[in-house]
Amino acid sequence: MSGEQELGITESKEHSPGEWYAEVVQKAGLADYAPMGGFIVTKPRGYAVWERIQNHLDGWFKETGVQNSYFPMFIPESFLEREKDIVEGFDPEVAWVTHGGHEELEERLAVRPTSESIIAPFMADWTRSHRDLPLRLNQWCSVVRWEATETKPFFRTKEFLWQEGHTAHTDEDGAWDETMTRLEQYKRLYEEVMAMPVMEGRKPEHDKFPGAHTTTTVEALMPDGKSVQGGTSHYLGTSFAEAFDITYADENEEDNVAHTTSWGLSWRAMGALIMTHSDDQGLVLPPAVAPTQVVIVPIWQEDTKDEVQEYAADLAVDLEDAGVRVELDDRDHRNPGFKYNEHELNGVPLRVEVGPHEVEDDEATLVHRPDGETETVSREGIGDTASEHLDTVHAKLYASAEETLEGEIREADSREEILGTIGQHGGYVKCGWCGDEDCEDPIKDAIAAEIVMVPLDRDEEPVHDECAICGDDAEETAYFAKSY
Amino acid sequence: MSGEQELGITESKEHSPGEWYAEVVQKAGLADYAPMGGFIVTKPRGYAVWERIQNHLDGWFKETGVQNSYFPMFIPESFLEREKDIVEGFDPEVAWVTHGGHEELEERLAVRPTSESIIAPFMADWTRSHRDLPLRLNQWCSVVRWEATETKPFFRTKEFLWQEGHTAHTDEDGAWDETMTRLEQYKRLYEEVMAMPVMEGRKPEHDKFPGAHTTTTVEALMPDGKSVQGGTSHYLGTSFAEAFDITYADENEEDNVAHTTSWGLSWRAMGALIMTHSDDQGLVLPPAVAPTQVVIVPIWQEDTKDEVQEYAADLAVDLEDAGVRVELDDRDHRNPGFKYNEHELNGVPLRVEVGPHEVEDDEATLVHRPDGETETVSREGIGDTASEHLDTVHAKLYASAEETLEGEIREADSREEILGTIGQHGGYVKCGWCGDEDCEDPIKDAIAAEIVMVPLDRDEEPVHDECAICGDDAEETAYFAKSY
Repeated sequence: MSGEQELGITESKEHSPGEWYAEVVQKAGLADYAPMGGFIVTKPRGYAVWERIQNHLDGWFKETGVQNSYFPMFIPESFLEREKDIVEGFDPEVAWVTHGGHEELEERLAVRPTSESIIAPFMADWTRSHRDLPLRLNQWCSVVRWEATETKPFFRTKEFLWQEGHTAHTDEDGAWDETMTRLEQYKRLYEEVMAMPVMEGRKPEHDKFPGAHTTTTVEALMPDGKSVQGGTSHYLGTSFAEAFDITYADENEEDNVAHTTSWGLSWRAMGALIMTHSDDQGLVLPPAVAPTQVVIVPIWQEDTKDEVQEYAADLAVDLEDAGVRVELDDRDHRNPGFKYNEHELNGVPLRVEVGPHEVEDDEATLVHRPDGETETVSREGIGDTASEHLDTVHAKLYASAEETLEGEIREADSREEILGTIGQHGGYVKCGWCGDEDCEDPIKDAIAAEIVMVPLDRDEEPVHDECAICGDDAEETAYFAKSY
Repeated sequence: MSGEQELGITESKEHSPGEWYAEVVQKAGLADYAPMGGFIVTKPRGYAVWERIQNHLDGWFKETGVQNSYFPMFIPESFLEREKDIVEGFDPEVAWVTHGGHEELEERLAVRPTSESIIAPFMADWTRSHRDLPLRLNQWCSVVRWEATETKPFFRTKEFLWQEGHTAHTDEDGAWDETMTRLEQYKRLYEEVMAMPVMEGRKPEHDKFPGAHTTTTVEALMPDGKSVQGGTSHYLGTSFAEAFDITYADENEEDNVAHTTSWGLSWRAMGALIMTHSDDQGLVLPPAVAPTQVVIVPIWQEDTKDEVQEYAADLAVDLEDAGVRVELDDRDHRNPGFKYNEHELNGVPLRVEVGPHEVEDDEATLVHRPDGETETVSREGIGDTASEHLDTVHAKLYASAEETLEGEIREADSREEILGTIGQHGGYVKCGWCGDEDCEDPIKDAIAAEIVMVPLDRDEEPVHDECAICGDDAEETAYFAKSY
């Protein structure tokens, strides 16, 4: 990132969103492509954003009874097969370890694609009495899925970082509460930390996590009109508990099968964040996840250099004392214009400009990213003032994303209308649906849109009485969208 | 952990340290054995200790300019070969991924045994100008080494958790400072967080990290008289930078080769911690890493139950408000004696007992783990009082380990004396050494002790003028010990 020529984003978010995204990710120092297709290197700025996402979520998990743990990254083939036996449709494409050192292994080991099959036997072992429940485990780790698709950093990579939670409960109510608690925490993460509105829903029956009773999801709309599955929380019923023998003695010493859940959020959340807020100047980050929240750029001529630099340095101390993550950009070999561009590219939410005028009037000029709104404020109380401006930046980002989302949920009551509406606008189209997967196919085949969710509430009346595709009685409302 | 019969540690630390260690690890809920030999499951209490180690170290890293990042867990075979070509003696036993999904891969991928060979090419790519240096990267991850040895949780496992730091600098001074900064942080971790004294030193030339200029180490003495390599920090000179082309343009636009370092600390630190402090009652944890620092056990009869429980609950609030990690054990179905045993097994540093007497006198009775020292203190200011007692517990643990270490460093000036001293006492034996690996062999062959370190300062006068083994001039002091 040392040459001037590299600073500018050359692609357009509106006209070439795929290329634009790839360019922002690389030029803003979030990730690089690894030499093996499908793998990326997460660079410091990208990892720092992920750490903030982790910290928020991990704190909420712990406040609500979750314990972190760590299970082996390898799963014996026979364990995966066991899951395959019980879960129809489970046939993950995985990376296989066949040799250790110079020896061939007796049994192949899968690099974990998800850890149900290695965690569940231990949950069974650790669960004896009703007093051992609820058991709430989580791990932050990387997983590998050998899907042969084009690499898109944080969206489509063979290895990705995530958390996976696995819990066991005495009954359905407990497990269902758990499922919803995690879904609400994912929603909160998007809204409060990432400044993104999301919709909560269920996956249709044919698109549930294999073996799950119910898969709930938070869906986020991207600016190109596609939906991103932003996190999923599964109520697994008793299917995994039965298969893996997760049982407990109740208060009468009688044996019962536990009810389990699992829930996960990956670094795809970070991809959705980048795609939602960033622009043709580069990365835009909500203050809660920005590694640097405020950058101070001093503007001086030779005769004002000392006083401006001293003033800027004092300001940095004040901001730091106020708990703001601040950087003083006092590089001599760069002019202010270059610095503005660089910090815009890197997604610093608030720029503080100080020159001789600010010094004289005991003030500071604040500039918001991304809209450039500028205000000159008093130096006194700069910590509180900066915090308020950061809140404003968050609110503006959220409002903008919310406005986009609200305009992009449309209704349709025929196959043609679904196709035409999504074809023309993208976004979500809701319609009556009979519940049959066959009625998704014509939409999928024609424009690669699918049912990304149905309402959480199973008793909610469908938006129309009839299925928009087959005309039979509608069972529920389907939300069609193209998706990542 | 639900049956009473499981609480007691049956093995003896003194007489069967290996079995005792395995029993403490399992019964105190730190780890379980995975179904594949060489792998373990880190249970919540174990992982919570690891998280506290991580948090301390990660905080210090960030304060001193280190940026976290994440590199792929797989390394193409050709990349590892490249390291093999430049680094004599580098032939890691690794796990090989040969298949992805149903396809055989064109090139085998190693599950990372350490990441120099995948990180260095990116450091080369990101380093152009002297302004890009120092570049300080770290990642927290798991690595796999396919060594066929008996599994010992946290000490010997095929997969283990660690951090690996990789840095590049313009010159030797910068890189050497870095090497020592990290070594000092490891020492600080042991002393201030884990209550363990360590010795700093260098590995002898023949036992350096392959390709390193200097390997520095912190060594900790275990109660069974063996040394543990507690963390290593390598000054790599320019060898990796030359091989991977990590060069930079200096202020005159001339090309220079960078100097690099790497440094790592694994969950073996946690193993050393468990082994050092724990006893025949179970786990002993220094307060800084204990997930629960204080447990409150209310002691009541039916007629005093309400007042005692209320008092205990208020006490818990006070302690929590004071920033103490406190647990109120108000289980009805367990008696105080059972609770004492369980919390001792689980390594809670401070127990607070409250019964009718304490309620009446507005007091609380504090009991230290491990020595059982008991003091009844005033309820007023209980937060500060508990914190002071936790500091005392830390100090006692440190003093005890320090006393052990000090008595276990002996001198010898002949082969027979080295053999006899280590054979009889274990611990460290320091002696004059000519610097030749051949003089280590007879000790190694006879009693499996080796030179675990030499002094950091290359100019330090050897403890004796002559090599204790061959009688030639001594170049330096060798510290012989058996080691993990």
